[in-house]
Amino acid sequence: MKEIVTFGEIMMRLNPPGYSRLLQASSLDLSFAGGEANVAVSLANFGMDVSFVSKLPSNTLGNCVINDLRKFGVDTNKIIFGGDRLGIYFVEKGASQRASTVLYDRAHSAIAESNISDFDWSEILKNSMWFHFTGITPAIGPNLPQICECACKEAKRRGITISCDLNYRKKLWSREQAGKIMSKLIPYVDLCIANEEDISDVFGITPQNCNPSCGKIDKESYVDVAMQLSKKFGCKQVAITLRTSISASINNWSGLLYMDGHAYFAPEYTIQIVDRVGGGDSFGAGLIYALCNGFEPQKAIDFAVAASCLKHSIEHDYNLVSVYEVENLVAGNTSGRVQR
Amino acid sequence: MKEIVTFGEIMMRLNPPGYSRLLQASSLDLSFAGGEANVAVSLANFGMDVSFVSKLPSNTLGNCVINDLRKFGVDTNKIIFGGDRLGIYFVEKGASQRASTVLYDRAHSAIAESNISDFDWSEILKNSMWFHFTGITPAIGPNLPQICECACKEAKRRGITISCDLNYRKKLWSREQAGKIMSKLIPYVDLCIANEEDISDVFGITPQNCNPSCGKIDKESYVDVAMQLSKKFGCKQVAITLRTSISASINNWSGLLYMDGHAYFAPEYTIQIVDRVGGGDSFGAGLIYALCNGFEPQKAIDFAVAASCLKHSIEHDYNLVSVYEVENLVAGNTSGRVQR
Amino acid sequence: MKEIVTFGEIMMRLNPPGYSRLLQASSLDLSFAGGEANVAVSLANFGMDVSFVSKLPSNTLGNCVINDLRKFGVDTNKIIFGGDRLGIYFVEKGASQRASTVLYDRAHSAIAESNISDFDWSEILKNSMWFHFTGITPAIGPNLPQICECACKEAKRRGITISCDLNYRKKLWSREQAGKIMSKLIPYVDLCIANEEDISDVFGITPQNCNPSCGKIDKESYVDVAMQLSKKFGCKQVAITLRTSISASINNWSGLLYMDGHAYFAPEYTIQIVDRVGGGDSFGAGLIYALCNGFEPQKAIDFAVAASCLKHSIEHDYNLVSVYEVENLVAGNTSGRVQR
Amino acid sequence: MKEIVTFGEIMMRLNPPGYSRLLQASSLDLSFAGGEANVAVSLANFGMDVSFVSKLPSNTLGNCVINDLRKFGVDTNKIIFGGDRLGIYFVEKGASQRASTVLYDRAHSAIAESNISDFDWSEILKNSMWFHFTGITPAIGPNLPQICECACKEAKRRGITISCDLNYRKKLWSREQAGKIMSKLIPYVDLCIANEEDISDVFGITPQNCNPSCGKIDKESYVDVAMQLSKKFGCKQVAITLRTSISASINNWSGLLYMDGHAYFAPEYTIQIVDRVGGGDSFGAGLIYALCNGFEPQKAIDFAVAASCLKHSIEHDYNLVSVYEVENLVAGNTSGRVQR
Amino acid sequence: MKEIVTFGEIMMRLNPPGYSRLLQASSLDLSFAGGEANVAVSLANFGMDVSFVSKLPSNTLGNCVINDLRKFGVDTNKIIFGGDRLGIYFVEKGASQRASTVLYDRAHSAIAESNISDFDWSEILKNSMWFHFTGITPAIGPNLPQICECACKEAKRRGITISCDLNYRKKLWSREQAGKIMSKLIPYVDLCIANEEDISDVFGITPQNCNPSCGKIDKESYVDVAMQLSKKFGCKQVAITLRTSISASINNWSGLLYMDGHAYFAPEYTIQIVDRVGGGDSFGAGLIYALCNGFEPQKAIDFAVAASCLKHSIEHDYNLVSVYEVENLVAGNTSGRVQR
Amino acid sequence: MKEIVTFGEIMMRLNPPGYSRLLQASSLDLSFAGGEANVAVSLANFGMDVSFVSKLPSNTLGNCVINDLRKFGVDTNKIIFGGDRLGIYFVEKGASQRASTVLYDRAHSAIAESNISDFDWSEILKNSMWFHFTGITPAIGPNLPQICECACKEAKRRGITISCDLNYRKKLWSREQAGKIMSKLIPYVDLCIANEEDISDVFGITPQNCNPSCGKIDKESYVDVAMQLSKKFGCKQVAITLRTSISASINNWSGLLYMDGHAYFAPEYTIQIVDRVGGGDSFGAGLIYALCNGFEPQKAIDFAVAASCLKHSIEHDYNLVSVYEVENLVAGNTSGRVQR
Repeated sequence: MKEIVTFGEIMMRLNPPGYSRLLQASSLDLSFAGGEANVAVSLANFGMDVSFVSKLPSNTLGNCVINDLRKFGVDTNKIIFGGDRLGIYFVEKGASQRASTVLYDRAHSAIAESNISDFDWSEILKNSMWFHFTGITPAIGPNLPQICECACKEAKRRGITISCDLNYRKKLWSREQAGKIMSKLIPYVDLCIANEEDISDVFGITPQNCNPSCGKIDKESYVDVAMQLSKKFGCKQVAITLRTSISASINNWSGLLYMDGHAYFAPEYTIQIVDRVGGGDSFGAGLIYALCNGFEPQKAIDFAVAASCLKHSIEHDYNLVSVYEVENLVAGNTSGRVQR
Repeated sequence: MKEIVTFGEIMMRLNPPGYSRLLQASSLDLSFAGGEANVAVSLANFGMDVSFVSKLPSNTLGNCVINDLRKFGVDTNKIIFGGDRLGIYFVEKGASQRASTVLYDRAHSAIAESNISDFDWSEILKNSMWFHFTGITPAIGPNLPQICECACKEAKRRGITISCDLNYRKKLWSREQAGKIMSKLIPYVDLCIANEEDISDVFGITPQNCNPSCGKIDKESYVDVAMQLSKKFGCKQVAITLRTSISASINNWSGLLYMDGHAYFAPEYTIQIVDRVGGGDSFGAGLIYALCNGFEPQKAIDFAVAASCLKHSIEHDYNLVSVYEVENLVAGNTSGRVQR
Repeated sequence: MKEIVTFGEIMMRLNPPGYSRLLQASSLDLSFAGGEANVAVSLANFGMDVSFVSKLPSNTLGNCVINDLRKFGVDTNKIIFGGDRLGIYFVEKGASQRASTVLYDRAHSAIAESNISDFDWSEILKNSMWFHFTGITPAIGPNLPQICECACKEAKRRGITISCDLNYRKKLWSREQAGKIMSKLIPYVDLCIANEEDISDVFGITPQNCNPSCGKIDKESYVDVAMQLSKKFGCKQVAITLRTSISASINNWSGLLYMDGHAYFAPEYTIQIVDRVGGGDSFGAGLIYALCNGFEPQKAIDFAVAASCLKHSIEHDYNLVSVYEVENLVAGNTSGRVQR
Repeated sequence: MKEIVTFGEIMMRLNPPGYSRLLQASSLDLSFAGGEANVAVSLANFGMDVSFVSKLPSNTLGNCVINDLRKFGVDTNKIIFGGDRLGIYFVEKGASQRASTVLYDRAHSAIAESNISDFDWSEILKNSMWFHFTGITPAIGPNLPQICECACKEAKRRGITISCDLNYRKKLWSREQAGKIMSKLIPYVDLCIANEEDISDVFGITPQNCNPSCGKIDKESYVDVAMQLSKKFGCKQVAITLRTSISASINNWSGLLYMDGHAYFAPEYTIQIVDRVGGGDSFGAGLIYALCNGFEPQKAIDFAVAASCLKHSIEHDYNLVSVYEVENLVAGNTSGRVQR
Repeated sequence: MKEIVTFGEIMMRLNPPGYSRLLQASSLDLSFAGGEANVAVSLANFGMDVSFVSKLPSNTLGNCVINDLRKFGVDTNKIIFGGDRLGIYFVEKGASQRASTVLYDRAHSAIAESNISDFDWSEILKNSMWFHFTGITPAIGPNLPQICECACKEAKRRGITISCDLNYRKKLWSREQAGKIMSKLIPYVDLCIANEEDISDVFGITPQNCNPSCGKIDKESYVDVAMQLSKKFGCKQVAITLRTSISASINNWSGLLYMDGHAYFAPEYTIQIVDRVGGGDSFGAGLIYALCNGFEPQKAIDFAVAASCLKHSIEHDYNLVSVYEVENLVAGNTSGRVQR
Repeated sequence: MKEIVTFGEIMMRLNPPGYSRLLQASSLDLSFAGGEANVAVSLANFGMDVSFVSKLPSNTLGNCVINDLRKFGVDTNKIIFGGDRLGIYFVEKGASQRASTVLYDRAHSAIAESNISDFDWSEILKNSMWFHFTGITPAIGPNLPQICECACKEAKRRGITISCDLNYRKKLWSREQAGKIMSKLIPYVDLCIANEEDISDVFGITPQNCNPSCGKIDKESYVDVAMQLSKKFGCKQVAITLRTSISASINNWSGLLYMDGHAYFAPEYTIQIVDRVGGGDSFGAGLIYALCNGFEPQKAIDFAVAASCLKHSIEHDYNLVSVYEVENLVAGNTSGRVQR
C-alpha cells in the first residue's frame, strides 16, 4: 500500500503539569505537536505508512522533533532542514468553567519562512496515495499559500486523494485572507474536514437556526452547511465535527460525514476530558484511516468520532489509541470497564 | 486610588500531590495561604493596590512568604517580623464521597503570639480606602480580638470601608467565644461576608426550612438571615455564599448580596472541582473588587460568584484568574472552549 | 482478639503517572498490591490484627514488599522466602470511554512456583479467627489448588471462618478450570464474595433478565444468583458487588449481602473515580471487618459498600480510609465537604 | 536476644529537591527523622530488635510517623499519643562551599511538652538489653532532663547497657545548661558517643593543638579528650567521630573508639556526599550493632565508621545499607564497582 | 539610598531536569534569566534597591517574568510592554568532560525589536546611583547600540556610576561588530567587567604567555590586560573573572580588581558545580554591591569572588545567597559544615 | 553504505530517581536497554544505519521497546514478536563508597525462550556489513548458543565483520559454561572487546602483576592478555577497556586496541560519574563507528574511549552524544566549558 503524506508545521508544546497555570509553574511538560503531525502520528499508530513533510531548524530542537516522530512510527525522511527556529506553543489546561488557553510563539519558524523551492513535490509525492494538510499551513508564512497550491496540483496530477481540515486560526490571518486563500485551495480537495465554526469563519457559509457559541447543535443545519460547501467547491466528501462544550471538563462529541448527497451521523459521546487539544486532528486521522481502508460511510464516521472521542482521554496532542480500542468503542462498549 | 489593606495570618500550605493521602506521600506541594492573604493576592491579581498586614518569623520561611506575596503583586512593607514560627497547614484533596481534610499546625505562630503594640494602625491605614479581615484573625491568639478592634476603630475614624468574612473555625474557638467577640467587631463592619453555616454558628441566626448539611439551599431563608444580620449589627451589606456539595468533586455554587433591603442572587454554577480551598476568600475578593470599582449590586454579586466559581479550577488557595476571564464568565460564556 | 489471615500473591504494581499511557511514560509510579494483600492492608488500617501469607523472592524486591506491608500494619512474619521472582503488573488508568488496562507479568513468581510443603497451615493458622483468599490464588500455579485446599481444611478443622472472593481472571485459567477447582474449594467457604460477572464465569450461575456488559443491574436477579450459589455450595453468606460502569471516570456502585434467606442491599453511590483497581478487595475487607465486629447484616453491607465506595477515591490498590470516614459515609454524609 | 530501646524526638523532615533552596521550592521532599529514631531504623535495618520510644500527636501526622517506623522494622508499640504537634525541620542541602542548613520548628511538640508520668520506664525497659538516647532529648523540654534520668536509673537498675550521643544543639540550650544536665546523665552511660566539637561544647574538655573549625584533626589530642571524658564520668567506652569538611560536597570521615585504656582508629574515607544529615547517628547505630554482636574493638570501630561512611551516600537521615554492604567496605572494597 | 538600574534582556530558561539531555526530556525546568536581570536579582537579594529595565510582550509570558522579578524583590515598574515575543534559551547541564550547552531562541524578542523612543532615560534614571548593562544588550537588536549609548550619556550627565560586563556572545555578533560598538560604549563605563576571553574577543587585547582554552591562568598577564583596557578606554576599574575549567563538574574560580594602578586578587576556590550558568553575573553583582557599600578594593574583590563562588552551588541563573553567607565564606569558612 | 546488525536482549530498565534506594522509591525512572541495543542506539546516534535483532513479546511493553528504538533511529523491522515477557532489570545508582547495584528479572523473556527457527540469518544479514553481539546473548537461554553460532556462520559466509563484547555475567552462567561456549564463538570474531576482568573470567587468560579488584592497572600486562587472546582465537583486533574505580562517583577510564602486533592506548580520563551503566557498550559502539569509517588504530581507540568517557555523563544506558562532541574531546577539549 502506498503512503499517506501530511504537510504542515510541528511545534514544541509546553504546558504546566495538571491544571496549573503558567504563573504557577516551575516546570513544563514537553511534547511536540501540530495539526498535520498529529494526523500523521495517529495514522502511524493505526498501522498506516505515513510521512510527515515540514521544515525544521538544524539544531538540537529539530533533532528532538525527528526523534519524537520516529518514535511514533512516522517517516521523517522528507523533512528538510534549515531556517532559524522551531515554533513553540504554550497550553494551560482548563477545567470546569475555566477555558484551556493556547499561546502561540510560532512566528519566524523554519517552515513559516520556507520558500517555494524548498519542497520538490514531485519527489515528495512519488509514492503517495493520500495528501493531507490543514488551513493552518497556508496561514503561517508568506510563501505557504503558493507552496500548498503546488502540493495540491502535483497531488491532483498524480491522482492522489487530498484532504484538508479548515482549522481557522484567527491569530494567523483574518477571515477575509483565509477565505481568499482557501477558496483557491479547497477546489483541489476531495475530503474537506471542519469543525462547526470554521466553515462560517472562512467561507461565511452558516447553518440556519444555530448559534455555535451557545453550545447547541442542530443536525439539519449542519447537513445544509456541508451540502453548500460540497457544492461550492466540488468536494466529494465533507466531514464536520460536532462539539457541545458543557464545560472545559465535559463535552458532548459527535460528527457527520456528507457524501453522495447523504449525511451520516455518528453517535454522540459525553466525554470527561483529559486533554482536548488535538481532538479535531484525531477525527481527521480516524476518517482518513477509515476511508483508506474502504469503510462504508456510516462505519467511517463512526470510527472517526470514536477515535477522536478516545483522544480526549489522552494527554498531549497525539492520539495514542489502538484500532482495537476504537473498534471496541464503535461496537458500543462505552463502559470503560478495566481490561485485564 | 488608595490601597486596600487585609490583616490576618498567612501559613505554609503543604499537600500531597493529586489525590494522594498524607500516608502515601513522599513529597508535599508547597504554597502559602491564609484567608486574608488569599483576598489580597486575588485583589492584586485584579490590578488593585493591596497591602497585607501580618507578623512573620524572621527566618528563611518568613522570607519565603514575603517573596510569594511580592510575586503576586501584594505590598509586604507593612508586615512586621518577630516571634517564633510560621503556621503550617496540611491539605488532603478529597474526591467523590471522600472529603478534603485540612489539618492545622498553627498554634504559637508569630501572629498568634503578637502583641497590641506590634501594630501601629494609624500608620498602617494612613493611605487606605478599605480594610478587610476575617473571623479567623481574632480567634488565633489571646491579643488578637483587641488588635482587631483597634484596627476597626482606626479604620472607622478614617472613614475606611470595613469588610469581614465570618469564617467560623471550630478548632480555634467555641461558638460562644466566637459569638461574644464577633458581636463586638461586626458593628464596625460595612460588608459582612459569610458562608451558609457561619451565621448560624457564630450568631445563632438560622434560616428557616433549611438544613445546610443536607445540601439543599432555600433562597428565601437566606435572604431572611441576611436581613436579620444586617439589622442586628447595622451592616450595610451582607453577602452569603451558597454552596451545594454534591460530592467532593462536584459542587453547585452561587451567592447573594443583600443591601438596601434588596437581595441580589447570582446564577448558580455546577463546578468540577480542581481545588476548593480558598473558594470563599475568592468570593470576598471578587466582591471587594466589584464594590471598589462601583459595580451595581447585581453586577457585583455576579462578578464575585463568577470569580470564585473560577477559583475552584485553580490549584492552591490563591485565585489566579484575570478580570477578563471573570467578566467573560459573567457574560455567560460557561462553555470552557479553548482560547487560542 | 485473634488474627485474620489472608493468603495469596502480592505483586509490584507499576503505572504511568496520571492518565498517561505506557507509551508516553518516562517514569512509573511504584506500589505493591494483590487481592489478598489489599484485603489485609485494609483490615490492618481499620485496626484489625491481620497477617498476610505468601512466598517472596529473597532479594531487594522481596524486602520492599515486606517493608510496604509492615508500613500499613500487616504482620509479615508468616511470609516465606524463596523462589525466583516477584510478579509485576502494569496499570494504565483509563478515563471517560477509554478503559483502564492491566497487563500482568506474574508467571514464574515465587508463590506461583511454590510447593505444598512450603506452607505449614497448622502453624500458620494457630492463632487465627478468619481465613481469606480469592479465586486468583488457586489459579496462579500448579500446586496452588492443593495448597488452598490444605489451608481450607486446616481452617475448617480449627473452626476458623473462611471467606473467598471468586475474582475470576480469564488470563490465568479457563472458565472450565476455574469451575472445577473452585467447586472443590467453595464448599469450605462461609462467606463467598463475587462481582456480578464472576458467578456466571466460574459456575455458570446467571441472573435472569440481566446483561452485565450493558451496565444494567437488576436487583431481583442478583438475589436469585446469590441464593443459587448459597444453596449449591452451602455458603452461609454470599456478597455481591454491583457496579454500573457509566464510563471509566464515573461508576455507580452498590452491593448486597445474602444470608439466612434474606438479601440486604446497600445504597448506591455515584462515584467520580480516582483509582478503581482494588475496589472489589476493599469491599471484601469492609465486609470482613463488619462481620468480625458483629455488625447486623444491613449495617455490614452498608459498611462494606461505603468503604469500597471511598476506595475509588484513593490512588493505588490499598484502601486507606479510616473507620470513622466509612461510618461517616454510612451515616449519609456524602457531600464531601472539607473537614477542618 | 533482648531488644534495644532508643528514646527521643522524631520529626517531619522537609527539604527542597536536589540542591534547591527553600526560596526556589514548589514542593518539598517528605521524610521523618530524629537522632534516636535514626539509630533505631539503622539497627532494625541491620536485623536487630529495636523499639523506639517517644510521644506523638494523635492525628494523621502521628500516624504517618508510626507507618514510617514500622516500614523500616522498628517496634512502635511503646510510643505514646497525646500533645499537640509533631516537630518539623527544614533542610537545604548544600554543595561545594555552600553549607547545608537545618531550620527547626520543633518547639511545643508532643514530646517536648511531655510529663514525667507519660513514660513508665519499668514497663518500657522490661525486655531490653540496651538503652540509647542523645543529648538532644534532655534539651527539648522542661521535663525531659528528669525523664531521661528516670530512664537511665531504671536501665541501670536492670543492668541494661546505656549509650548516649552528646549531640550538642546550641539552638536548644546554652553550653552551661547542657553541661549541667549532661553531667548528671553521663555518669549512667556506658558508651559515650560524640563528634569532635560536642565534648568541648558540653564539658569544656578540649583536645590540644587542634582547631576543629579549621578542619584539621589531630589523632593524639582526640585520644586525650576521650581519656579525659572516660575518667571524669566513668564511661567504659568513648567513641568520637572524626570529620574533615573539605567542602559541603566532600568530607573525610573516620572515628575512634576508646576503651580499656586503648584507642582504636578506623581507616579514613574520602566521601562524595549525597546527604550528610544523620551521619553521626549512623555511626552510633553501627557501633551499637557491633558491640551487641560482640565485635572486637577494632572491628567495632571499623564497622561503625564504614556504616556511617555509606550513610553519606543515602538520601534522607536513615541509614539504609545492609550489614553485607558495610562488611564489604570494612573488607576494603572501596571501589564502588557495580554489583550485578 | 538611590537605586541601581540594570538594562537588558530577560528570557525564559528551559532545561531538562538534572543531567538529562533535551533528547531525553519529557519535562523542562522553567525559570527566567538574563545577564542584567541576574545582576538585578542578586543585588535585590543582597538588600539593594534595584530596578530592571527591559521590554516584554504583553501576554501571559510577560506577566510570568514580572511576577518572577517581583518575587525576588526587583522593581519592575520601568519595564515597558509591547513587541511580539519573549526570548527563550535551552540549557543542557553538562558533567565531567561533557560541556553544558546553551541554545538560544531569542531573535525577534520584544526588546530585540525595540525602538529608541521606547526608553525615556531621563525618566528612568532620575532616581539612580548606578547603571549596569552588558555587552549582550547592544548585540541583540539593530537599535540597541544607540539605545545603550543614550542610556550611558544620560547616566553620565547625571553623574551615575556605569558598569558593563563585556560578555561577548559570538552567536549574536562578530568580533568586529562587537569591537566597533563596544569601543563607543566602554568610554562611558566606570567599571568594566570581563571574563578571561572577552577582552581578547572584543578588543583584541591579549594576555601574554597564556592560552585560555587550555585552562591555565597567568596572574601577571591578566594584570597587564586590565591595565591596557583601563588605559585605552579610561575605565576607573577593571574586574576580570578567572576560571580554570578542570571539567564541567569542577572548576577553579577567582578574580581580580584593577584600580588606581593596583591589582587585587581574591583567593581561588575549587568548586563542585551545581549550576554554572549565571556565574559571571553573580560576580558583577557582588562587585557592584561591594563598591556601592564602600568596601575597600581587596574586600570588594573578595566579596565578588566569594558571592560568585557560592552561585555555582545554586540551581538556575539567579544567585540566591545571603550577604551573611558570602561574608562567612570571605572570612575563610570554606568547609561547608551544616548550619543548624 | 550497508548496515550494522546487533543481536541480543533488550530489557526494561527501572531505577529510583537520583541516588535513592529501591526501599525508598515511590516511582521508578523507565528506560530500555541491553548490551547490543545500547550499541545499536549509539551507532544510530552517530549517523550509522543500524538494525537491532531480537524477540519481543507481542504486547504493550513490546510496542514500547519498538517505539524507543525507533526514536533513536534504530531499524526495528527485523525484530520478531512472540513469547511471554520482556526482561526487566532494576538499577540502584551508587555514590562514593556505595556501589551501584543491578538486579535482573530476565528469566523466561521472549528472547531467552526463543528457538533456532525464529531467526532467518540469511534474510537478516542480507544487507549487512557488520554483525555485533555480546557474551550475554548466548548465556540467556538454552538455544541461544546455537542461534549465535548460526548468525556467526552466516556472517562469515557473507564476509561480514563480526564483533563481540565478552561481557561475562556470573548470574547467567558459570565461568566454565561461558568458557566452553565462547570458545566456540570467538573464532568467528574479528574484533573482540572486553573489560579487564572478562578475559580472565571466561578464558582464564590473566594479566601478570595485576589485581583488577584493587583498581590498579598495568599497561604491559594488558597488552600481554590481548596478545594471548588474539593468538588463541585468531581475532584480528582485541580491545580492552581499562577502568580504575576510585569510588562509585569517580573513575579513571581508558582503553587499548591491539591489532597487527601493536597496542594503541588512549589517554586516561578522570570521570565524575552521572550514570556508569552502559559505559562498556558505548566503548564498543565508538570502536565500531571508528573502524567502519576507516579511522587509523590510534584514532579509533581514542574515539572509542572518548565516546565512552562522555557516556558516563549521560543518564540511562544509551550514549546520546554526537560525533562532534566526541571529536572535540579527542582533540583535547576536556574542560567542559559551556557551549553557547
